[in-house]
Amino acid sequence: MDQKRVAGEKSAEYIKDGMILGLGTGSTAYYMIKKVGELIKNGMKIKAVATSKSTESLARELKIPLLSIDEVDKIDLAIDGVDEIDNEFNAIKGGGGALFREKIVASLANEVIWIMDESKLVDGIGEFPLPVEILPYGYKHVIKELQDYSLNPKIRMKEEEIFVTDNGNYIVDLHIGKPMNINDVYNKVNKITGVLETGLFINMCDRIIIGTSSGTKIINNSNSQNVKMEQFR
Amino acid sequence: MDQKRVAGEKSAEYIKDGMILGLGTGSTAYYMIKKVGELIKNGMKIKAVATSKSTESLARELKIPLLSIDEVDKIDLAIDGVDEIDNEFNAIKGGGGALFREKIVASLANEVIWIMDESKLVDGIGEFPLPVEILPYGYKHVIKELQDYSLNPKIRMKEEEIFVTDNGNYIVDLHIGKPMNINDVYNKVNKITGVLETGLFINMCDRIIIGTSSGTKIINNSNSQNVKMEQFR
Repeated sequence: MDQKRVAGEKSAEYIKDGMILGLGTGSTAYYMIKKVGELIKNGMKIKAVATSKSTESLARELKIPLLSIDEVDKIDLAIDGVDEIDNEFNAIKGGGGALFREKIVASLANEVIWIMDESKLVDGIGEFPLPVEILPYGYKHVIKELQDYSLNPKIRMKEEEIFVTDNGNYIVDLHIGKPMNINDVYNKVNKITGVLETGLFINMCDRIIIGTSSGTKIINNSNSQNVKMEQFR
Repeated sequence: MDQKRVAGEKSAEYIKDGMILGLGTGSTAYYMIKKVGELIKNGMKIKAVATSKSTESLARELKIPLLSIDEVDKIDLAIDGVDEIDNEFNAIKGGGGALFREKIVASLANEVIWIMDESKLVDGIGEFPLPVEILPYGYKHVIKELQDYSLNPKIRMKEEEIFVTDNGNYIVDLHIGKPMNINDVYNKVNKITGVLETGLFINMCDRIIIGTSSGTKIINNSNSQNVKMEQFR
């Protein structure tokens, strides 16, 4: 059975009538979004904010009523995928390039659930390249600073062209490897003029749902709220 | 005599043949750029990087050879205006909306000179609204966070529309007033997801040139280099 699918479908059990949802981006979120489409077809009143243009298209196809990020005060529940996460809920997200919108949506959500297959839960993050969204203006200098820190940056390409995010910016992927000193990387990268946001999501989820060969495994994060408030206040 | 003009023209005396210049933005930088045009007309070999589209247009008119920010490794001398500066060289810039490009250019420059009329040098900064460049996506939530910090944010408008920067983003002006706790504001604002950069330029210039009723006053900043390196490493 497809692990991504079971995790995505399981997460839909947390959706309640009347909720405003945050819809994630990527191959695991896809199954959750399909399920949201079904719930709406069955009469549930749900509205949603999308974390990317691709998710927006999918939601439209499935007739999920959409709100823009600036129309909502709060999001009840955000469900999204993750690229790598450790046992302390430190995660790398943004493999699909939607990290900025994903972070805004997560920060507005009362509850955040991340869904994944078993390969995503790791001893320590850093194997998966850390995406960083940067402005096009002066991007070569930002890359040079990242190189000076030995963070092994590579500009993300799409075919022959530089990949452009939904916000019109570029992505640099940092091939850091393990072990990664999370705080050190976070502080260095965030201080660089030209960096908009990183794909480091530190303790921002309340619950993870992992698809396994025999079903799902759910792990709750008892510390999430305090840390989330601290990070965003 | 026009204070902006004498300051702008005086700064041109620091320009040497063969230099790559950073050209600032605004009404004082205007006089410096005109002077650069004259120097080139008189045979000096200078190339320049512009900090805004408006400066780029002016430079083209004056036949100043331009380089894009990604074509240069270093800038020899950046000359720019400033909106408010205190005796410790803490400044607010970006009244013209070009703060991001101004900051990138200043950070690449071996030497930075700011030019101004007497009104810009103040006991403490904060009277001038502090500009903050933010992403359009989710901007209302960023404004709300700034409000929660009592930073008195106002989205910048141009006629009936939201003002858009050269990077396609918005500007929020923080009406903080004096006294402003610079480090506190810097740390709070920079941590907000959605903030790209602030107009706080902390100890980033090497020299200021002030136009006065009787000529110019020049103040050198003996501490600039170390602090600049610290801020960008």
